[in-house]
Amino acid sequence: MKSNLLSNIFNPADLRLLQEAQLPQIAQELRQFIIDVVSVKEGHLGASLGVIELTIALHYVFNTPEDLLVWDVGHQAYGHKILTERRENFHTNRQIGGISGFPKRGESVYDTFGVGHSSTSISAALGMAIASQLKGDFNKQHIAVIGDASIASGMAFEGLNHAGVTDANILVILNDNAIGIDPSVGALKKYLTAVKNGKNPKQNNMIKSLNFDYSGPIDGHDLPTLIKELNRLKKTKGPKFLHIVTTKGKGLQQAEENQVKYHAPGKFDALTGEIHLKSEENLPPKYQDVFGLTLLDLAKKNEKIIGITPAMPSGSSLKFMMDEIPERAFDVGIAEQHAVTLAAGMATQGMIVYCNIYSTFLQRAYDQVIHDVALQDLPVIFCLDRAGLVGEDGATHHGVFDIAYLRSIPNMIIYAPINEIALQNILYTAQFGLEHPIAIRYPRGRGIISNWEVENFGQYENIKIGDGNCLKSGTETAVLSTGTIGNNVIAALNECGNPKTIAHYDFPFIKPLDHNILHYTFENFKTLITIEDGVISGGFGSAILEFAAANNYTNKIQILGVPDVFIEHGTVLQLQQLCKIDVKSLANLFSNRSK
Amino acid sequence: MKSNLLSNIFNPADLRLLQEAQLPQIAQELRQFIIDVVSVKEGHLGASLGVIELTIALHYVFNTPEDLLVWDVGHQAYGHKILTERRENFHTNRQIGGISGFPKRGESVYDTFGVGHSSTSISAALGMAIASQLKGDFNKQHIAVIGDASIASGMAFEGLNHAGVTDANILVILNDNAIGIDPSVGALKKYLTAVKNGKNPKQNNMIKSLNFDYSGPIDGHDLPTLIKELNRLKKTKGPKFLHIVTTKGKGLQQAEENQVKYHAPGKFDALTGEIHLKSEENLPPKYQDVFGLTLLDLAKKNEKIIGITPAMPSGSSLKFMMDEIPERAFDVGIAEQHAVTLAAGMATQGMIVYCNIYSTFLQRAYDQVIHDVALQDLPVIFCLDRAGLVGEDGATHHGVFDIAYLRSIPNMIIYAPINEIALQNILYTAQFGLEHPIAIRYPRGRGIISNWEVENFGQYENIKIGDGNCLKSGTETAVLSTGTIGNNVIAALNECGNPKTIAHYDFPFIKPLDHNILHYTFENFKTLITIEDGVISGGFGSAILEFAAANNYTNKIQILGVPDVFIEHGTVLQLQQLCKIDVKSLANLFSNRSK
Repeated sequence: MKSNLLSNIFNPADLRLLQEAQLPQIAQELRQFIIDVVSVKEGHLGASLGVIELTIALHYVFNTPEDLLVWDVGHQAYGHKILTERRENFHTNRQIGGISGFPKRGESVYDTFGVGHSSTSISAALGMAIASQLKGDFNKQHIAVIGDASIASGMAFEGLNHAGVTDANILVILNDNAIGIDPSVGALKKYLTAVKNGKNPKQNNMIKSLNFDYSGPIDGHDLPTLIKELNRLKKTKGPKFLHIVTTKGKGLQQAEENQVKYHAPGKFDALTGEIHLKSEENLPPKYQDVFGLTLLDLAKKNEKIIGITPAMPSGSSLKFMMDEIPERAFDVGIAEQHAVTLAAGMATQGMIVYCNIYSTFLQRAYDQVIHDVALQDLPVIFCLDRAGLVGEDGATHHGVFDIAYLRSIPNMIIYAPINEIALQNILYTAQFGLEHPIAIRYPRGRGIISNWEVENFGQYENIKIGDGNCLKSGTETAVLSTGTIGNNVIAALNECGNPKTIAHYDFPFIKPLDHNILHYTFENFKTLITIEDGVISGGFGSAILEFAAANNYTNKIQILGVPDVFIEHGTVLQLQQLCKIDVKSLANLFSNRSK
Repeated sequence: MKSNLLSNIFNPADLRLLQEAQLPQIAQELRQFIIDVVSVKEGHLGASLGVIELTIALHYVFNTPEDLLVWDVGHQAYGHKILTERRENFHTNRQIGGISGFPKRGESVYDTFGVGHSSTSISAALGMAIASQLKGDFNKQHIAVIGDASIASGMAFEGLNHAGVTDANILVILNDNAIGIDPSVGALKKYLTAVKNGKNPKQNNMIKSLNFDYSGPIDGHDLPTLIKELNRLKKTKGPKFLHIVTTKGKGLQQAEENQVKYHAPGKFDALTGEIHLKSEENLPPKYQDVFGLTLLDLAKKNEKIIGITPAMPSGSSLKFMMDEIPERAFDVGIAEQHAVTLAAGMATQGMIVYCNIYSTFLQRAYDQVIHDVALQDLPVIFCLDRAGLVGEDGATHHGVFDIAYLRSIPNMIIYAPINEIALQNILYTAQFGLEHPIAIRYPRGRGIISNWEVENFGQYENIKIGDGNCLKSGTETAVLSTGTIGNNVIAALNECGNPKTIAHYDFPFIKPLDHNILHYTFENFKTLITIEDGVISGGFGSAILEFAAANNYTNKIQILGVPDVFIEHGTVLQLQQLCKIDVKSLANLFSNRSK
């Protein structure tokens, strides 16, 4: 091995001192550095390996951070982070107090725009480019790097549609690897594939139709070609579009061959690429699999059932249904708005649609939930995966706003199961015509019942809409929890000896609330404590306060949940501790109250 | 004039009994019928006049309501309503208890999908088409009629991108008149114009790139051509796209010549087209003009100020700035998501961006507000026009959710001015670097200060962030209002003799709340009444409840606002009466409390 070049690169200014001939070695070292760290520390792998050459070429050709570089989504930005003053901190990636897994403005001047959700880069870069123009800077370049899955989302089209009629210095680089987290879908993907295969005449070019100076497709792993083309584009004014073709996971054979698994593989062997499998024996199931297995089972028995996911077949486990009943299970790509209104359209024709969207991404379709579903009172079944605190993905991905933003919508039913059985049963119940839309929110990760699949799977019970449950009786204080955070309450009560003074009620229905239990608790307890893994402002506790005000109750009410700040990354336990809704914090609270 | 054919048409089955040669007469009668009614009753005019022939041809060729017809936005659906069993009720259009100004499922089986917001039709029709396929119906047709302004919105692209890889029976009809409410913008519009002018070779076709069977452009006012082409498409399986060219306002000369004004012209002379001008002397200004005039004035003095509107330059009055400082005022088309992230990108470069979006349409960019603006704490200034109850546009357009959906977002400042002066002053204050995003919500229509422009315009005062105002002192009950609904409180207190027992506080800041006033009121008044023109669930009143709970106050709190149902159309006064926040209802409440 030649001398280590990467260790002398603190930032892109150092990189630009190298000879072009030295760059392939940097690429090799950078690739290895990422593999070495991620294999031990975990994180997103495949996307960053795929853009190593592009990352080097961009920082080599352009004058970053003066020229402004926006990474779409940001899974692919590890190489960028390492080359921009964060090599030595890279091992803290995604850990509490460490660097973020995504570009983040507060972390570095090289991170010009915070990302996490997809398809924002063109709009952001265009905003920067127009601002530069207005400030009289006509030489600065503004670059958006966007994948073929992200560019198919409507927001990216809106950005292109505007950029094409400006003379702003924006360069859109399409990193076309034919995959997002799962393989890309849709007509645009088909078109891009045809372009790559030389089957579309160059003059029939969609991007040119939008008034861009189009070039490509070129090999995104060929450094000399990339550098030559970027140097040309650097001198070209106005909106430009470069189409490059890359391989996700490039340089690690297993990652290239199994791109979905190596998107974020967990710990693996840095030499062989072999993933270190954890023993899954006796572990409770993932809520995702409870959803996926249950929906498949229900769909086999009910021909009206349809499943929809916007680009998350693996993450949501809708893939189980897609594999067995492909004609009724749809991956529509990164298109949350379309996913929701498509579901609404199907529901008008009597179909029973389970529309699975991560809580944080349903924010992308808020208007469609209000205007196309709830206003028409269509019984679409929203399955909100990754609700609550999600852990290492951090501030951009926590599903903590959903209770607040859904609760104010008329006609909505909102349900948060406390465990796998409740999730299975509400999925079962929802197919029988609730006559209203329902949102079922459940967290990322594993449940609490080790033998769920053996003992409980398929043993369905109908759930009565609006009913809560008394989990423990008491005399002084009533704890009202919603969703899986209720298990923290159970554990905390256990930890402090299940004091007689404290009762615990599970409110799976955030809307409609169980008025019987509420009247009972307000009449029989001095104090109520509400607990949720969502924002306090406007959330479940706030709904309890509104009930109290409307019914003239003046009991003391304490609201626990996520405070009014953005919560960063860390383990779910660490973040629960920050919010004081972890088992230990709750046990302390209960101990003090029961003294 | 020939015998009146239209009066014998109850529904499309009757229409289909006519000879094709009779259809031009139907077109003439239908056009006149709309002009006659709208000239007296008001409503949207130009869009419906432009699709008279298309409407007739669609119902003539297709077997509605078995074939499913989805109108995008719905401004253009008056002809459709008249031909589908609502001719005799058409005079009740947009009135309380009357028919809706938009297609609405509850109103007719011919209204297959409720609309109001744009760009939903392709997704909805595709959902219906896939459902039909799954039910084994391969002959049914599913038709989305969408304008060239709507199809440029990202959501429409998402629908096309999915539809193109299905074999569903969907027909997308692009009604290309080169205008939405204001003239269309963007690269796609430029492309479509080139296509119409024969400047784009047919093989270079963007829509074909998305895998559609494309035909057109054809003259959308030529009934024989339309009918022939629709008959051909009726027999064609799979995704189809027909590009027709029409003239907005067709058949009324003034409406054709002044398309923006005749989008919804108010009362006019049915013969001459002359608009009946109301005397505007001594009327208070529209809040829209307070925004538009103030922003222009500020922008003249501050070069960093930028204005953005997604397709509402006239409605928002951003046109004042667009006319005088076009390089810093942007109409980005129907692209709320892009508008918000564009603003965020500009804000990263130190620009001061006023992003004006109707409250109901900001729902379309909820994730961008959270993820691109608030999470990065960028000081974008959101101007939320048409907040609160909007009147005749009805359920799809009320801006009643914004307080609830914005309040739960960390870093947001939310301000609701009580009058024109407060609006002007907050617009002035916001330019000086609030270090956080701010949302300024104000209603549709006129303010309360007749001589504002003469006496107050340009007399700026700085507003201290977070401060509320005591408008009237009292002893027993404190009324806390936010925004212009506070004027109803003032009037109601006047009406019942300004009782000494009742105090009134204006809370222009919904976030952050004025804690000093709140502590004072909780300590000095038995009862608090909160009033807002937004939803009660999670709104301003709810924020007061959270404050009380956090500070252990147990005063009685009554919350007034919009209840947990969708509010239909009517005058603002009628809708305020429904919600019991009109002057008379408040006066009754205050009288009872002061006895």
